Amino acid sequence: MRLSPRSSVRSSYRPRPMPAALRLVIGLAILVTVGTLTLMLPWMGAQRPLTWNEALFTAVSALSVTGLSIITPVSDLSLAGQIVLLLLIQIGGVGFMVMAVIVFQLLGRRITLTDRLALTDSMGLLVPGAIVQLVRRVLLTVLLIETIGAALLWIHWRDMLGPERALLYAIFHSVSAFCNAGFDLFSGLPQHPYGIPNDSTSLAILGTLIFLGGLGIPVLAELLTFWRIRFSLHTRITLTVVLTLVSIGAGGLFLTEQQPGHPLANESLERQIALALFQSISTRTAGFSAFQPLDELSPAGRLLTIVLMFIGCAPASMGGGITTGTFAVLMLAVGAYARGLASPQIGGRTLAPQTVRKAAAILTVSLLVVLTATWLILITHEASLDDALFEVVSAFATCGLSLQLTGELNLFGQLVICVMMFWGRLGALTLVVALAHQRPQLVTYPEEQVLIG
Amino acid sequence: MRLSPRSSVRSSYRPRPMPAALRLVIGLAILVTVGTLTLMLPWMGAQRPLTWNEALFTAVSALSVTGLSIITPVSDLSLAGQIVLLLLIQIGGVGFMVMAVIVFQLLGRRITLTDRLALTDSMGLLVPGAIVQLVRRVLLTVLLIETIGAALLWIHWRDMLGPERALLYAIFHSVSAFCNAGFDLFSGLPQHPYGIPNDSTSLAILGTLIFLGGLGIPVLAELLTFWRIRFSLHTRITLTVVLTLVSIGAGGLFLTEQQPGHPLANESLERQIALALFQSISTRTAGFSAFQPLDELSPAGRLLTIVLMFIGCAPASMGGGITTGTFAVLMLAVGAYARGLASPQIGGRTLAPQTVRKAAAILTVSLLVVLTATWLILITHEASLDDALFEVVSAFATCGLSLQLTGELNLFGQLVICVMMFWGRLGALTLVVALAHQRPQLVTYPEEQVLIG
Ligand SMILES: [K+]
Ligand SMILES: [K+]
Repeated sequence: MRLSPRSSVRSSYRPRPMPAALRLVIGLAILVTVGTLTLMLPWMGAQRPLTWNEALFTAVSALSVTGLSIITPVSDLSLAGQIVLLLLIQIGGVGFMVMAVIVFQLLGRRITLTDRLALTDSMGLLVPGAIVQLVRRVLLTVLLIETIGAALLWIHWRDMLGPERALLYAIFHSVSAFCNAGFDLFSGLPQHPYGIPNDSTSLAILGTLIFLGGLGIPVLAELLTFWRIRFSLHTRITLTVVLTLVSIGAGGLFLTEQQPGHPLANESLERQIALALFQSISTRTAGFSAFQPLDELSPAGRLLTIVLMFIGCAPASMGGGITTGTFAVLMLAVGAYARGLASPQIGGRTLAPQTVRKAAAILTVSLLVVLTATWLILITHEASLDDALFEVVSAFATCGLSLQLTGELNLFGQLVICVMMFWGRLGALTLVVALAHQRPQLVTYPEEQVLIG
Repeated sequence: MRLSPRSSVRSSYRPRPMPAALRLVIGLAILVTVGTLTLMLPWMGAQRPLTWNEALFTAVSALSVTGLSIITPVSDLSLAGQIVLLLLIQIGGVGFMVMAVIVFQLLGRRITLTDRLALTDSMGLLVPGAIVQLVRRVLLTVLLIETIGAALLWIHWRDMLGPERALLYAIFHSVSAFCNAGFDLFSGLPQHPYGIPNDSTSLAILGTLIFLGGLGIPVLAELLTFWRIRFSLHTRITLTVVLTLVSIGAGGLFLTEQQPGHPLANESLERQIALALFQSISTRTAGFSAFQPLDELSPAGRLLTIVLMFIGCAPASMGGGITTGTFAVLMLAVGAYARGLASPQIGGRTLAPQTVRKAAAILTVSLLVVLTATWLILITHEASLDDALFEVVSAFATCGLSLQLTGELNLFGQLVICVMMFWGRLGALTLVVALAHQRPQLVTYPEEQVLIG
């Protein structure tokens, strides 16, 4: 180990990422603790109080907007419990960082630059500044979209459910859809054994809410608050990737699931298209299933679903996965390598080398985490490889689609899925950065080539 | 799109990678054609000539040293056919690039600098020069190792098979093991329904040959031709990763496969350890199975096997997969990101940024190719997701382990697996680079940040 004196860098010159990542982890952990304790209160359960692991699993699933569940909310939770669940989803979806800022404001403490930067990083806003105004604007936008969605759902559902019950259901499912949470109050009702009603009108309203929530705060802000001649590179990439993935998913599911024995077999062509389209949108992280029951999914459909969940939604959105941004950067890196370019290019812009490295790290960590968790589930449960992989990816991508394995998990399996949801909502690298030993780079070493692939 | 005039680079200043990649693709395609036509000759079959698709599949599998097979070599091939198979394995294993150099020499043509660089790239030698001498040295080393292996196998097998038949078997399996090809002449014999004899002596000899072949030519050259005080970074990384993966694989398989109903259930502890160790070494690309029958593998064992196959062997070795080098670079990139370092570091050396980008491209392309091929198999066959994924990864990583799906493939499925083996032997990016439209980079664009994960 030789020291190269010319290249020593003093650590004080570099922003150190640890505090922000660690703060995010601790913040989510506190929210999970509060949520778990609240759900354990005696009057939150319908017939009996929730056990600690039911409360923990539900709190993590709601705060990470995943939607996997070991309880049946409509029959196991009281009205109070259902409202707490709704609040946890809203807090988890709109972002605990936004909440943190508001709490800071209410407490009268000024927001420090570090906090501002942490929030900027977490919400995916690359240019700091005017955070508080932006948070207000985001919250107003979220509430506006959710209110419109709830109103439409109420109009559509009021005859089926009666006006009062329809109000709770409209608000709950509008929030759950926009936040891409995937919790519903239908599963468990005799007339809805497989969850949300999958008539085309319900799917259209819910699908639109899911789609908007999955675009992410920066894209929504750009789309809703000012129309420009030219969107930012991030918005253009996100829209391109999202529309491509939705099309591939809908086309693939339409192709494989209309075979006999699979979910689209007995539907009309229009319904096949509508159901495949909604399922493709929802798979990328919302977790509502228009395919009922979902475990009729063909092996090809399972593979496509796993891949779509793993890629997930836009960065800084309601959804999880490696994100469409990571996916786009990796594809651009492949294209640049194949064509012999010095660096990836898109739309008249060059990507920074650090972006490619971060994308590689996200993909690697995500694969390692998902595969390790799947292995842990498999050695402790009688489950097939594809069922276990499906459930773990669904948790890590905070999607919430389930082939029913979650309901059969033992305590260890429940904790593994909890860790996946927690890790996934923070993002693949946040926990790694928070737990790593940060060290200032005092030396640089000479380069040496290593052979790869 | 704005042109940035200061950064235009004239294409003639940059080595253009296309010719080398394209030459590799065409070279392998020619070898496959010659191998297929040779195997279609009437006297190559035992009872009947091979069909064109049997000959093609066998030629691709042998030249890519994969070992997947839709025929049973011992009963479907004549002695002449078995010798041709042996030669195809040897040519595929030692590398068609080495062969190309020798052909050039025999034809009396001087090796151009371009060819020299192509060979250097293909064999993973980063410093050009003295190629011809090195090729001679590599060939001598290969023949020496294979001869020692064959002698040991003959001594061990001569009582079981008789001295004459043992000679053919010893040579065939020594070459097949060292080249990590995975073809055997035992499958189909009544006393060996599941392939190679899995007594501990046979496993020790074959395992050593597989291990040496899997280290790759650069590491072997360093280990065998000159002992230094300090190995190169590449050799140190390769040995570390290989030994780690072998340990994880053996430990994981030992843990899960001794459960009732799985391959190690009825073995003594010593045999469990020996079988798990051999299987771990062989899984990373050789494709001989000590677990007999292999389809008793537990779901956890299947997952571990798929991951080990996907990572594969060292670069420029007899094996495939994304390679241990790519795996190491990706892990180092994660570590560097987590600790806030500007660039990945290992053993007092810094990795070049282009190395990380290439590793990301290899992982991305490999995942896309494997998942697409699995989907294509699933929509055209009645197969489960894990069976199809196992077989496709086995082909792409040129491993050759099989859960018996290969024997049931229709013509389309056989072609998909052929493409996987061909692509895998070339390396994930070679075909992409060969097919891409290379363009000189005449402009650079301004950088813009893109959000990811
Ligand atoms: K969800
Ligand atoms: K092989």
